[in-house]
Amino acid sequence: MAVRHISSAANQEVKRLQALQKKTKRRREEHSFIAEGERLFRDTPAGCIREIYVTEKFLGDHGDLLEEKLSEIKECAGSPDYTVLTPELFGRISDTQTPQGVMCVAQMPRYTIRDLMGREAEPFLLLLENPQAPGNLGTIFRTAEAAGVTGIIMSADTADLFNPKTVRATMSAIYRMPFLYVQDFVSRIGALGKEGVDVYAAHLEADRPYDAFSYTGACAFLIGNEGNGLTKEAAAAESHKLLIPMQGRIESLNAAMAAGILMYEAARQRRTQE
Amino acid sequence: MAVRHISSAANQEVKRLQALQKKTKRRREEHSFIAEGERLFRDTPAGCIREIYVTEKFLGDHGDLLEEKLSEIKECAGSPDYTVLTPELFGRISDTQTPQGVMCVAQMPRYTIRDLMGREAEPFLLLLENPQAPGNLGTIFRTAEAAGVTGIIMSADTADLFNPKTVRATMSAIYRMPFLYVQDFVSRIGALGKEGVDVYAAHLEADRPYDAFSYTGACAFLIGNEGNGLTKEAAAAESHKLLIPMQGRIESLNAAMAAGILMYEAARQRRTQE
Repeated sequence: MAVRHISSAANQEVKRLQALQKKTKRRREEHSFIAEGERLFRDTPAGCIREIYVTEKFLGDHGDLLEEKLSEIKECAGSPDYTVLTPELFGRISDTQTPQGVMCVAQMPRYTIRDLMGREAEPFLLLLENPQAPGNLGTIFRTAEAAGVTGIIMSADTADLFNPKTVRATMSAIYRMPFLYVQDFVSRIGALGKEGVDVYAAHLEADRPYDAFSYTGACAFLIGNEGNGLTKEAAAAESHKLLIPMQGRIESLNAAMAAGILMYEAARQRRTQE
Repeated sequence: MAVRHISSAANQEVKRLQALQKKTKRRREEHSFIAEGERLFRDTPAGCIREIYVTEKFLGDHGDLLEEKLSEIKECAGSPDYTVLTPELFGRISDTQTPQGVMCVAQMPRYTIRDLMGREAEPFLLLLENPQAPGNLGTIFRTAEAAGVTGIIMSADTADLFNPKTVRATMSAIYRMPFLYVQDFVSRIGALGKEGVDVYAAHLEADRPYDAFSYTGACAFLIGNEGNGLTKEAAAAESHKLLIPMQGRIESLNAAMAAGILMYEAARQRRTQE
């Protein structure tokens, strides 16, 4: 086992880690991202871990967790190294105000469309067109896993899933929820329809409420951008228009909330049907 | 109509407005808060507006909206004044990165418990114990209005509803959703039970799913803190324990999401019953 120590902020590796935290471009180039904090580190599959960074304090308090991960990595024939950073350097790289003293560089998961279609259950997809708020996107992933969604397809202009805020908000669902970013988002919607997946889109002027449809078969919910909703092209794609009824004078729900309400209605129907 | 101009950052009024944006204590002392942006300004009831601040650019682009508000204020026998700030000063007071050039100081609404019990519908309450994330709290208010909630009771240690981020996230529901902060949160739960309100609390080990209860009568959902859930005392209060089923390895849902799923199940039942 190799242990290294870094204590100079001028170190090229520190600069590289900062770039990985802040820049989508850098993450894409390296096809990796930083998973920070005890929970995310624990949940990162050993086979995806490329590098580990800790503080002395973390070693003292949670050395057992590190040992466990290192032995898992060894089983995957990976290199069980880690680097010790000073608290000051760790804080500079960290995206949180009170860093927990552990982070790893993880390889981005890769999926094919087949991975998104589920194994035991009927396909249950989310189609996200351009949501931008990092917290929203993470919350959608977290809720999707809990609701039994089988996969998430995102338009290429959707916010970066590997932004540290988003990664954190997924509560590790990022490692378990199959997803794809696609360039040809609108034509994918059409293709899904042809493959027998019923596509549903919330619409403010639809006259049928969301709970009047059945989601026990292969289905997909189409969710748009927080401020602007769906693009004309996506709204024009073949889909069932559903209404999420709203009382009072609220004009729309938060995008993650709307997605959650729809996903949990589908989950409720699928559970009750069993 | 009186128009004033302020262009010096040393001005006492600018400092006071900054304090109103940043400090809960100052907001409580003045019993008022700042509502910023076109939507919130438009939705602030004329009777609650104490002061108005705009930029020259806003006057040029949206003078009609200002005129409309000023005449509403006149009808309420208020003083239809406004103050013009330089863009630089407006930016210093603003809580947003791209200020829209309009904000008002608004009086906090005051309610009694009777206001929270609804008029036409059976009481449908949320009981929030100590949620802390400003965005979450705002989203809960926004979703609650849409779901037909009649009122929200919050423990005294819940985040400040008048934090600018929270106000923004409510999407103006802050003016329409009756609420109370209470010191004796746990005993209030007991009191509601005695008054015939069925109290429901999500619990990870409950064995009855949330959709197996009926929420068409007087009901209340008890929601805890994002990280720690309910306190022992609140969890021990008389309530029906319900399960929000979760697949995969997610440990819990986001607090606002859990609240939204429960509220929309109640709304669905109440709508279907009509």
